[in-house]
Amino acid sequence: MSDGVRAGVVVTGSELLTGKVQDRNGPWVAQRLASLGVEVTDILLVGDRRDDLAAGLRFLTQQRVDLIVTSGGLGPTADDVTAEVVAGFAGAPLVLDPAMERHIAELLRKWAARTGFTGAALTEANRKQATVPAGAVLLKPVGTAPGLVVTVPAGPVVVVLPGPPRELRAMWDAALNAEPVRNLLAGVPPFTAVHLRLFGLPESEIAQTLREVGAELDLSDIEITTCLRRSELEVDLRHRPGAEAAAARLVSEIEQRHGRYLVTRDGGSTDELVARLLGGHTIGLGESCTAGLVAARLADRPGSSAYLLGGVVAYSNEAKTALLGVPPELIEAHGAVSPQVARAMADGARATFGTGVGVGVTGVAGPGGGTVAKPVGYVCLCVTTSGGAVRESAPVLPGSRADIRERATDLAMHLIRRVLAEQPEPAR
Amino acid sequence: MSDGVRAGVVVTGSELLTGKVQDRNGPWVAQRLASLGVEVTDILLVGDRRDDLAAGLRFLTQQRVDLIVTSGGLGPTADDVTAEVVAGFAGAPLVLDPAMERHIAELLRKWAARTGFTGAALTEANRKQATVPAGAVLLKPVGTAPGLVVTVPAGPVVVVLPGPPRELRAMWDAALNAEPVRNLLAGVPPFTAVHLRLFGLPESEIAQTLREVGAELDLSDIEITTCLRRSELEVDLRHRPGAEAAAARLVSEIEQRHGRYLVTRDGGSTDELVARLLGGHTIGLGESCTAGLVAARLADRPGSSAYLLGGVVAYSNEAKTALLGVPPELIEAHGAVSPQVARAMADGARATFGTGVGVGVTGVAGPGGGTVAKPVGYVCLCVTTSGGAVRESAPVLPGSRADIRERATDLAMHLIRRVLAEQPEPAR
Repeated sequence: MSDGVRAGVVVTGSELLTGKVQDRNGPWVAQRLASLGVEVTDILLVGDRRDDLAAGLRFLTQQRVDLIVTSGGLGPTADDVTAEVVAGFAGAPLVLDPAMERHIAELLRKWAARTGFTGAALTEANRKQATVPAGAVLLKPVGTAPGLVVTVPAGPVVVVLPGPPRELRAMWDAALNAEPVRNLLAGVPPFTAVHLRLFGLPESEIAQTLREVGAELDLSDIEITTCLRRSELEVDLRHRPGAEAAAARLVSEIEQRHGRYLVTRDGGSTDELVARLLGGHTIGLGESCTAGLVAARLADRPGSSAYLLGGVVAYSNEAKTALLGVPPELIEAHGAVSPQVARAMADGARATFGTGVGVGVTGVAGPGGGTVAKPVGYVCLCVTTSGGAVRESAPVLPGSRADIRERATDLAMHLIRRVLAEQPEPAR
Repeated sequence: MSDGVRAGVVVTGSELLTGKVQDRNGPWVAQRLASLGVEVTDILLVGDRRDDLAAGLRFLTQQRVDLIVTSGGLGPTADDVTAEVVAGFAGAPLVLDPAMERHIAELLRKWAARTGFTGAALTEANRKQATVPAGAVLLKPVGTAPGLVVTVPAGPVVVVLPGPPRELRAMWDAALNAEPVRNLLAGVPPFTAVHLRLFGLPESEIAQTLREVGAELDLSDIEITTCLRRSELEVDLRHRPGAEAAAARLVSEIEQRHGRYLVTRDGGSTDELVARLLGGHTIGLGESCTAGLVAARLADRPGSSAYLLGGVVAYSNEAKTALLGVPPELIEAHGAVSPQVARAMADGARATFGTGVGVGVTGVAGPGGGTVAKPVGYVCLCVTTSGGAVRESAPVLPGSRADIRERATDLAMHLIRRVLAEQPEPAR
């Protein structure tokens, strides 16, 4: 699986090189390209400097890429130089596009009316953002900057996208539809992908399975990537026509050996699955250390108000008692971080919100507050239902305060999933 | 600001190029280097392939860096090739270091005793990880791989660190203390940095200010970077001795023109500032569309339990009434998404949790549910205090459901900040 289309990604932004901002565009673009079967060879982060960006474009050309995607440097300020540098790279002059100038002027007029900012700064920004390499395909602005698709003679196709992740993502489909990009992608050989998502299985176990299956079966035509992200292990199998039988056999071996860790077989996320399982149910939350993260995670999905009735962030013991009905004696006897209190919070959340499913999370997120018996990372989780089902877990989670809270949120999602997967559909 | 020490970062890992894993080492190393006054020119993410890593090292050399930091590819498996490639790059043979071999053998013996894994694979791993470029300074393993500091004749110093972020970070101080790195860092000229953080000011306005000030003042010795992240604009000024007056003048111009948008002058984050302002106060939250994001954001910080007593995620009208005391008539009269209900939620959160500060957020996060009068993105926020202070805002926020919820959370943080900045310190 190597004779396909190769791509490189260049992300510009001096703030990325001081570590102030974490780049979100490189991984997003790489993931999109990979899903289309394009091989990404490099992701390069460079500052907002002409020479550095130009050097990056030359480097990727030496890496024999067919496609370069850039992000950033399309804004109105003097350090936004991408259009100019890409024009130079392609040997194309910069020209003012009158239609685009009018279009941006219209966008700016609306924005000015809303914000009250007007004047010379705007006119200047307008002209700069409508100045593009001659011959470029222009992609309609999402903010005020158009995207560009520039074909370099005897070189790669360069797709120039804005830096704000929202704008870049909104422009992606238009970029793929631009003729030079469409023509390139038509050259990607066909392939089939299978995505397995597992929860709670060590990566070494999958590695062993792959070794053992590989000993009796030719897996050389299957590209296998495993990726551990927090507690979820994703196994991606990708193969060209002809390797169907081997791929099917491998999937069935993984299912047989590790079936109880399997979350989804179709690439679907845990959150999608939980949302689907919550259809027809209602859920309420009682959170202490996760402090709203589980509620926010459930509410991420459109339509979540159909099942998510509410949650209580009960940081103080008083709030646990007043809003979730946790008996003070229970806290006294077992401590605020205890399986008993987590269960009372889950039951209390059901009572408070009148829901069928309740979730309780209480733990020591750190960095302070740990003891020998209840160290930093000790988190008690419980999910209960009006039908009497109970799922609980009380691990010591590794990492920083942020890691612990995120992992506890993941775990809550999986406990909800397990309770619901065993629940019959409620009568409506 | 160009005659200092320049550095590049190379992060290896094929999983980074499928977008499955977000690199955390590049930004971390860059931030550490920047804080030392080293200019990072590039962060390059490459796959676990000899040729690609070697090409990356050559590219950075062309970028005239004095220092290259690599992460990853030091493990025991066949695709861990960094030591070998760096040896080739430096023209140094690979040699087995007997002292390091014994040290790793000891580490592996302990690990084997704990896990039960033993045998030939371990011996092989031991030998591989102790095989290093001749002349390299070895950094004591944190996992089982030593770090390396390799001086390339007439080229850069290459610091080779392991990929797991925990191991890389634990090895950082030792890397800085290695003689070749110490010698390089001694050449960093002293500099002064000023960081301004603004909220709600368009980037084009700062651009105009910089142009206008630049027209009458020589700013060429000041390195200026502006970075817009959601609604916050960061302006960084960095200058060498001699440019103090120009830098001070520029900062004072920005303060004069845009003072009311200024959040911090010391590089501090909004969250740090809000946490500091909340010292001695208590806060309770009533959230609808943000559904716990404001609570989770406040709880991000260690010690937040001192002021964050709790929150209610009130998705349903019933929860707004039962837990936050919002009168059903008020919801009936103005709708659940209205400034009136946001204010009742803020007051209700104060009453429910007995806090001095209350926050209410209710809005249309979309993608469905919008109307002409209350479109998707319309969010009503209110912060009230027991002292009678009120801050409110009811914008129509752009973007996706996730964008709207994140921006609303940002806005809530700034409303809290503004209320508290005007509040006298409470009597204790």
